[in-house]
Amino acid sequence: MNTPHDAAVTADMSTGPTPAAATTKVSVTVIGLGNLGRALARTFLDNGHPTTVWNRSAAKADPLVADGARRAATVTEAVAAGELVIVCVLDYDAVRQLLDPAAEALRGRVLVNLTSGTPGPARELAARVAGLGAAYLDGAVYAVPQTIGTREAFVLYSGAADAFEAHRQELGILGDAVFVGTDAGSTSLHDVALLSGMYGMFAGFFQALAIGDSAGIRPTELTTLLVRWLHEAAAALPGFAQEIETGDYTTETSNLEINAVGLANILIATRAQGVPVDLLTPLQELFAEQIAQGHGRAGMSRTIESLRHRRTDG
Amino acid sequence: MNTPHDAAVTADMSTGPTPAAATTKVSVTVIGLGNLGRALARTFLDNGHPTTVWNRSAAKADPLVADGARRAATVTEAVAAGELVIVCVLDYDAVRQLLDPAAEALRGRVLVNLTSGTPGPARELAARVAGLGAAYLDGAVYAVPQTIGTREAFVLYSGAADAFEAHRQELGILGDAVFVGTDAGSTSLHDVALLSGMYGMFAGFFQALAIGDSAGIRPTELTTLLVRWLHEAAAALPGFAQEIETGDYTTETSNLEINAVGLANILIATRAQGVPVDLLTPLQELFAEQIAQGHGRAGMSRTIESLRHRRTDG
Repeated sequence: MNTPHDAAVTADMSTGPTPAAATTKVSVTVIGLGNLGRALARTFLDNGHPTTVWNRSAAKADPLVADGARRAATVTEAVAAGELVIVCVLDYDAVRQLLDPAAEALRGRVLVNLTSGTPGPARELAARVAGLGAAYLDGAVYAVPQTIGTREAFVLYSGAADAFEAHRQELGILGDAVFVGTDAGSTSLHDVALLSGMYGMFAGFFQALAIGDSAGIRPTELTTLLVRWLHEAAAALPGFAQEIETGDYTTETSNLEINAVGLANILIATRAQGVPVDLLTPLQELFAEQIAQGHGRAGMSRTIESLRHRRTDG
Repeated sequence: MNTPHDAAVTADMSTGPTPAAATTKVSVTVIGLGNLGRALARTFLDNGHPTTVWNRSAAKADPLVADGARRAATVTEAVAAGELVIVCVLDYDAVRQLLDPAAEALRGRVLVNLTSGTPGPARELAARVAGLGAAYLDGAVYAVPQTIGTREAFVLYSGAADAFEAHRQELGILGDAVFVGTDAGSTSLHDVALLSGMYGMFAGFFQALAIGDSAGIRPTELTTLLVRWLHEAAAALPGFAQEIETGDYTTETSNLEINAVGLANILIATRAQGVPVDLLTPLQELFAEQIAQGHGRAGMSRTIESLRHRRTDG
């Protein structure tokens, strides 16, 4: 029972209808059965993986156990049961507290930590796990529980490249598995960037709906149009990224000046509706800064240079 | 030559290979041949409409004329040639200056103004055009020139509902035609809202790429992931809109508190990278205001109430 292989056989014999096939599948443990953890465990079960689960309040495991998951009595037992150990809890402190007593059991396993956090704690945990003779992958899931296990979901991983390669197939069950670097902190850095982008979009949504509200436009009507427009407008982003990557901001169409005039008119019309403009004035300031520096004819993507310029680390 | 029907026959006889069929198509005039105007005229030509064009610098019309468009010598001649007269110039001042000498020729026609602007000038122009015995539609195109004439593009219209209904088919050639109300200013109000949403998304993009930049993540790599994530995250917006429309902000999953903690952690990690956070702090302040008012367990969509609360007209 202390090796992943034994655990797989055991779990299989107790639950699987097709033992011969199932023994070839990697045994998986999911620790933490919130919305995401439950969806992950369900997906592994559905794909025939011997699946062990643990949650602080054990009752959350009941539906999974009814469908063939093995319930571990302790975290140590849970860790010992899985070749691939996936942790999905609130924060890094919670991960450390859970795993400390199970440190010995981690040896030879792959720990996949899907807890959100920042690069520092991810790197510390990676070093600690490596010191225990286990491989560490820091992951972040981009999906709602409903899309886990579909091509709509994607999951970023960083850390132990060989462990990622060895388990690419299992990790791919959850959604597109994308490896973003051997620095365990790389997933967090990507995560901070991607969620910032999301919150920017949400800020724009609130601003749009506040304007709609002032004009008596129904929120659902406006949002149908907005979602459609955001999809179309997002198609411009790869071109902006290309300009930023090459540093060539030459444009024939939509330059900073045109966008600054457009945004200024929008903010004037917004104020005229009595709606505050605070959510968009910081962008206006970045446009103005670029134009003041003589870049009005450059592409709007050159706005990034003002953020770079303001960086405090050099 | 002074009625739309005459113009249609004339244009058709000079250019069309199938006169009998083409005479059934509404004659169209496009005034202003920038990127958008050229794409619109091209689309009408491709769909067999007798198409007359005018542009201040006449050479811009050459490729269209080579493909069968009729070049008008004056704006008055252009207006007289089209049953449907589409104007696509810089701003409302330019529209007024162009149309003033052609005022008499407008009688009985439908003027579609695709110039971006604010509600006030749109309403003034609508009143003036109605006074001249013509129908006015204020429009806004959501497309890049390449997607004009495809289902990816959509065009909002407001103003004369009967003119919209009568020309739904022709307007539908340019992209999905959506009528948003009889107030001519309604298109502008929608436009201000939708472009605000777009600039919010762009602000998020710049923020994401600045973080990526600080972490050595390639802009194009990050943007591929970001576009994918924005598509997924945008799927949450209709649900938010529903909550806002009903005023029922009850949620089981992602409440304001969770988002405030998430955003705070993102901003801490962003600052740790030396990247300024100005683009997202206004959203953080709205979250904080809602939580301070005791709505931490409400859905994030309740953020709209803080913007409503700050409105100066109500």
